[in-house]
Amino acid sequence: MLATVIHAARDVRVENRPVPVLRTGHDAVLRVLAACVCGSDLWSYRGVAPTRSPHPIGHELVGVVEELGSEVTSATVGDVVVVPFSLSCGRCQSCRAGFPSACDVVTFFGSTDRDGHPVDGAQGERVRIPLAQHSLFPVGRTEAEVEAAGLLPHLLALSDVMSTGHHAAVSAGVGPGDTVVVVGDGAVGLCAVAAARRLGAERVVAMSRHDDRAALARELGATDVLAERGDEGVAALRALLAGDLADAALECVGTEESMAQALASVRGGGRVGFVGVPHGGPTLPVRQLFGRNITVGGGMAPARTHMATLLDDVLSGALRPGLVFDAEMPLADAAEAYAAMDERRATKVLLRP
Amino acid sequence: MLATVIHAARDVRVENRPVPVLRTGHDAVLRVLAACVCGSDLWSYRGVAPTRSPHPIGHELVGVVEELGSEVTSATVGDVVVVPFSLSCGRCQSCRAGFPSACDVVTFFGSTDRDGHPVDGAQGERVRIPLAQHSLFPVGRTEAEVEAAGLLPHLLALSDVMSTGHHAAVSAGVGPGDTVVVVGDGAVGLCAVAAARRLGAERVVAMSRHDDRAALARELGATDVLAERGDEGVAALRALLAGDLADAALECVGTEESMAQALASVRGGGRVGFVGVPHGGPTLPVRQLFGRNITVGGGMAPARTHMATLLDDVLSGALRPGLVFDAEMPLADAAEAYAAMDERRATKVLLRP
Repeated sequence: MLATVIHAARDVRVENRPVPVLRTGHDAVLRVLAACVCGSDLWSYRGVAPTRSPHPIGHELVGVVEELGSEVTSATVGDVVVVPFSLSCGRCQSCRAGFPSACDVVTFFGSTDRDGHPVDGAQGERVRIPLAQHSLFPVGRTEAEVEAAGLLPHLLALSDVMSTGHHAAVSAGVGPGDTVVVVGDGAVGLCAVAAARRLGAERVVAMSRHDDRAALARELGATDVLAERGDEGVAALRALLAGDLADAALECVGTEESMAQALASVRGGGRVGFVGVPHGGPTLPVRQLFGRNITVGGGMAPARTHMATLLDDVLSGALRPGLVFDAEMPLADAAEAYAAMDERRATKVLLRP
Repeated sequence: MLATVIHAARDVRVENRPVPVLRTGHDAVLRVLAACVCGSDLWSYRGVAPTRSPHPIGHELVGVVEELGSEVTSATVGDVVVVPFSLSCGRCQSCRAGFPSACDVVTFFGSTDRDGHPVDGAQGERVRIPLAQHSLFPVGRTEAEVEAAGLLPHLLALSDVMSTGHHAAVSAGVGPGDTVVVVGDGAVGLCAVAAARRLGAERVVAMSRHDDRAALARELGATDVLAERGDEGVAALRALLAGDLADAALECVGTEESMAQALASVRGGGRVGFVGVPHGGPTLPVRQLFGRNITVGGGMAPARTHMATLLDDVLSGALRPGLVFDAEMPLADAAEAYAAMDERRATKVLLRP
């Protein structure tokens, strides 16, 4: 079967690999309906995160259950399932508290599972899913129904970017009437815009310098768009808000600059939700937090928890996070998908096996 | 009149100073019923925070209104008032949002006000209070009633330590059923114990190595006390909680070690409320926050907001934060009060002019 393997910076190949099989009674094997490339995959692609040895890549997918281990009762063969980007046990304290991304045995695609078996990447024709009991999320629709309703991109977004954008918003305590700034206009930032509006924010200010992304931000619920950054961004925000700052800011990039932008964009007592994977930052200036009473929450999104919250709105069409996919390619063209995203010719590429 | 002045490290003197007068229509002059020494005053006393020139010190007081500027309508001459440790306008965005400690013109005792006038310290016989309209908090009891009911220490605690302990708890989102760890057994930590219980925490674990403070923590609502710290403290906590960690931790010290202790004490998705004034730390390890989804909130407590929430329980006797005062001295002995707290012969000293 075909699967995507990263060998080194800018060297992503679609290769023939053995078809996955069940390794334990806790596994499932899925046939992938759709996968995609994540902004965080670009850290490896660009060499910012080194690739020490070749490994399968990709961590977002919608699939159909083909085989189930004897211990897995949460799904049935033939179910369409979304799989969160982190796999979890469902039983430890963090899982029980609704934070499976901090699971005691949290397991990632392309790594090694708790039993020592290699874990597939999601960008392949088939994948073995360890910890399947808690990690499979059946959507209650058949494959034909999903395809006929055009639900595939929207469901796929639940596996990471929409759940992550939602996590930024809930971590910042976004609620009715709030004014919210979203820092970052990638797929997660765009989903965060939709999440903030869904949670009742009255005003959502997207910071974006790209016309196409700004337009999509507005389609997803942004009331305002600001192109300025840094101190100029804060000044522009104050001008927009009659001298005020935002109640909350959603940091969806993961750099020191983006965190500083988020912190500077909120009033005293404001809240920052952060979901950008921290690379070389962001740092948290404790005295600024202390003096201005800024709360910072977030981190790796508990996607398995959030997708259950968001599914109904996706099925009803009220939430359409699949709009962040602005390109679709066959899995065989995964290398081109990475290049397109790296060169900003695409925001997010959906891959079809 | 007598007032306390810090000249240098370990050089605190009670001196004769001019009686304060109204400087603007926004001022009040109070006769001080009680003031006290704060753990944060010890940073200057110990020379950790340098004293560049002599200045009045102290920022916690209960007083009686003697004179009011023409613009101040929030109190009447003769009212018993608590004054929060930070003075605020009540009108800016942060004040309106309930965070007067991040007020645009936040003003501190012993500094200079927005009009350039020096601000008295609270450890004196009389004080001028700028920004009095929002900074005076009348308690609705006469001086005689306050004295007869023994309310003075409990009201005094609202000016800082109890409001600060409460802020740690609300910043950590403490609610019914929670298990909460309190790091720090000073006056703020002890008040944080009381605050966590008041907010419904089922289990409150105080980290304390001092028998007297541990006993007081239990009196204020701690269900458990742990003497261990660091990794041993975390192991002891897990042993106490059948392998689990806390839902929330309250950081009431302000050092790198205490913040690390708080962060290590909570489960994935846990919350840390921090109110210890950061001195040479605490640092916030962003990748740990990200990977374990820990929310950090808090900072300089909006005491003016919280005292309004807490007053009823103090007046009814349901909340008795004045228990943290384990010594009372005449104002003239302020130097001895500092020495007693510095040498840990006292937790917190109440000063009577």
